[in-house]
Amino acid sequence: MKTYSSLRIEKTITLGFLSLIAAGTLLLWTLNSGHEKPLSLLDALFTSTSAVCVTGLVVVDTGRDLAPASQWVVIVLIQLGGLGVMTAATAIMVLLGRRVGIRQRLLFTGGFGVETPSGAVKLLYRMLGFTFIMEIAASIPLFIVFLRSFSPGEALFDAVFHSVSAFCNAGFSTLRGGLEGYSGQFLLPGVIMILIVTGGLGFLVIGDLFVRLRERSHLSAHSILVLRTTAVLVAGGAVLLLASDSARGLSGHPLPLKIWNALFQSVTARTAGFNTIPIPSFSSLGVFVLCILVVIGASPGSTGGGIKTTTAGLLFYSSLSEIRGKSMAIGNRKISDGNVRRALAVAVLYILTVLLGIILLCLFEPFPFGTLAFEAVSAMGTVGLSLGVTPSLSAPGKVIIILLMFWGRVGILTFMYGMISRDREASKITFAETNIPVG
Amino acid sequence: MKTYSSLRIEKTITLGFLSLIAAGTLLLWTLNSGHEKPLSLLDALFTSTSAVCVTGLVVVDTGRDLAPASQWVVIVLIQLGGLGVMTAATAIMVLLGRRVGIRQRLLFTGGFGVETPSGAVKLLYRMLGFTFIMEIAASIPLFIVFLRSFSPGEALFDAVFHSVSAFCNAGFSTLRGGLEGYSGQFLLPGVIMILIVTGGLGFLVIGDLFVRLRERSHLSAHSILVLRTTAVLVAGGAVLLLASDSARGLSGHPLPLKIWNALFQSVTARTAGFNTIPIPSFSSLGVFVLCILVVIGASPGSTGGGIKTTTAGLLFYSSLSEIRGKSMAIGNRKISDGNVRRALAVAVLYILTVLLGIILLCLFEPFPFGTLAFEAVSAMGTVGLSLGVTPSLSAPGKVIIILLMFWGRVGILTFMYGMISRDREASKITFAETNIPVG
Ligand SMILES: [K+]
Ligand SMILES: [K+]
Repeated sequence: MKTYSSLRIEKTITLGFLSLIAAGTLLLWTLNSGHEKPLSLLDALFTSTSAVCVTGLVVVDTGRDLAPASQWVVIVLIQLGGLGVMTAATAIMVLLGRRVGIRQRLLFTGGFGVETPSGAVKLLYRMLGFTFIMEIAASIPLFIVFLRSFSPGEALFDAVFHSVSAFCNAGFSTLRGGLEGYSGQFLLPGVIMILIVTGGLGFLVIGDLFVRLRERSHLSAHSILVLRTTAVLVAGGAVLLLASDSARGLSGHPLPLKIWNALFQSVTARTAGFNTIPIPSFSSLGVFVLCILVVIGASPGSTGGGIKTTTAGLLFYSSLSEIRGKSMAIGNRKISDGNVRRALAVAVLYILTVLLGIILLCLFEPFPFGTLAFEAVSAMGTVGLSLGVTPSLSAPGKVIIILLMFWGRVGILTFMYGMISRDREASKITFAETNIPVG
Repeated sequence: MKTYSSLRIEKTITLGFLSLIAAGTLLLWTLNSGHEKPLSLLDALFTSTSAVCVTGLVVVDTGRDLAPASQWVVIVLIQLGGLGVMTAATAIMVLLGRRVGIRQRLLFTGGFGVETPSGAVKLLYRMLGFTFIMEIAASIPLFIVFLRSFSPGEALFDAVFHSVSAFCNAGFSTLRGGLEGYSGQFLLPGVIMILIVTGGLGFLVIGDLFVRLRERSHLSAHSILVLRTTAVLVAGGAVLLLASDSARGLSGHPLPLKIWNALFQSVTARTAGFNTIPIPSFSSLGVFVLCILVVIGASPGSTGGGIKTTTAGLLFYSSLSEIRGKSMAIGNRKISDGNVRRALAVAVLYILTVLLGIILLCLFEPFPFGTLAFEAVSAMGTVGLSLGVTPSLSAPGKVIIILLMFWGRVGILTFMYGMISRDREASKITFAETNIPVG
């Protein structure tokens, strides 16, 4: 049974995002009406949804086709959308932590002390503080890099824009060709990678890391799982991209830059959506590897999307322990069957939605299957990488992508909360157990 | 801990299949050495593995490049391989039924009374009897169809060959272009569909159906899940193929034949691997739909492959009940968490193996990604549909496909048994529980 308060939270989150998207749509539509290329209402809705859901898929070129005021609207929408997702997801995890008893709460919230309303407010302040410190600190090296090509005013705007866009895992860029002009250097991609990874870990893990480093105690099971899965995905993705695309997408660079660009694409595919190498220049195997990273995505309570590192990690550990015949434990904590079942439900729902999206897109649009599948996966994972067909989609195609972006961001979030907050004990009918052969 | 007897069964099954493949390889190699086109040892190994694992991928044209004696060897290997899989899988389910107590046993074995050795022998006889009756009965209409184009001797051989090949879900064909000449009629595809579906349900479900029809009692949860999932997959697959390929692969036929051919391809993708329509003529979306059917495959204890209908069904029902917040039941039987965890382990292991196979194939072979991915999925699912590159693969590519065929058939089977038969209670270490956020 859903409790009143759980329904209220789901509604608040959904309505909050919907209002933000609606406000953004109207602002973009009116602000750009005097510009040389006015936005259609559908394209304004698309751009607003993409910004609020920090996806980064675009139907118009952000730097060329949007008026300066509209570009400001986009970056504010990204910041509010990114913070909104972090806050909402963290609030959900904290509330869940309350439900599952004192021991769990400590694990979830990394010793933040959010038992009291004032504690929760303190957590929110710290989260905002951390976000702004990261974004401002990263703007400085970005500003220095951009000064080489732009006037100080432009360089400052672009530095702030890319810093916010990267930390929020949005992937929007005001530059022509995005970051493709920066595949030959280490500094800018390095700064962007740090922003993406810290934004994508989730604030609870960051907080946990701070607390544990100071107190020299153990990390929570949640943090261990997030850090392990993130490390494996980033390193594994980079190695696979090097194997598949040394002579393709990554060719023309010396080895250290090949590694740096492979690392960058591996980091960014996990929901940020920037690219230093044009995605269509990658081999099909490379694009497939990117797709896997996109589907898994970032960590819960972060600005990133996807089925989440914890979901993928839980499913993998559960299978591994089942194969080995041992009970499942991460960092000396047993993982409950209910936890695995929830991870499974998230993954199945996610994959079925993506499949439905792909099939609908293929039926409405004339583009090749692989291209449409990539855009659908990218939209649902709020990644925003593209093989280039999004601006050419028909109206039904754009609507499908808009729905995928919204569902991939807000739907999965509120859906998870609804699923977990429900009192499972309410269902009291019991049956005799059976056992069905599999495999 | 593995018990002695469980290890013995896994070894027996693996060694049995390996010996059959080795014997088949030598026979094919020597019998074809005097033929106009002698087989290389690798191609003989490939053909033998494909026949024993009832896959149906070919590196040589069965009808044109194999001597008549070799064709007989192929059909005997298929029959032994198909029966071997059915027997081994059924034996495993019966043994599992014994382990899980009297109530479960009845559910598993559909009232066959296999508590005693004589009961088990009776089950084996019934299974053989059912197989041969189905194959002989179906040969008659096939013979009549083939008489129109061939001499009585050829027609008889082809009728028996296709009947065995279809019931065993092998997909081998002695005809030039397989069954592509029969897309304009109802009879032959209809007979083949009946053979494929009955062969792919698994004998325990067939037996359960017989018993329950006679006694008018309820079906077991296992049978309900198999029948529901099979119906949804066949119907859903056909509808999607009609939607994606009415104007593509299925064009040039009147609507009833379009439906019949869509139904045929939907049935056959679930591990039989025949085709009336050339696979390369399907749209990419159609091929993608076929891939999904291939991965899910047929039912446990049958001649078919894939992750199995029950695995997919359990994962779906578990997610659905998690989303609805109800405990999970099928046909008034509660499904245990352990059962869902095993299904998850099978699916994860299967998908990781296919991904590894695809990546290796892409690194070794120059063909397009989609084509190689389809061959890998087809080999692992022991389906045998092909986009046509298998005969052109290099030696490493052929070895990868051979390993995928063997692992998809024998590996998954013995692996499942090892996993389930293991005494899970042996692991006694307990940890405090934790709960990790997902989604
Ligand atoms: K993004
Ligand atoms: K087959």
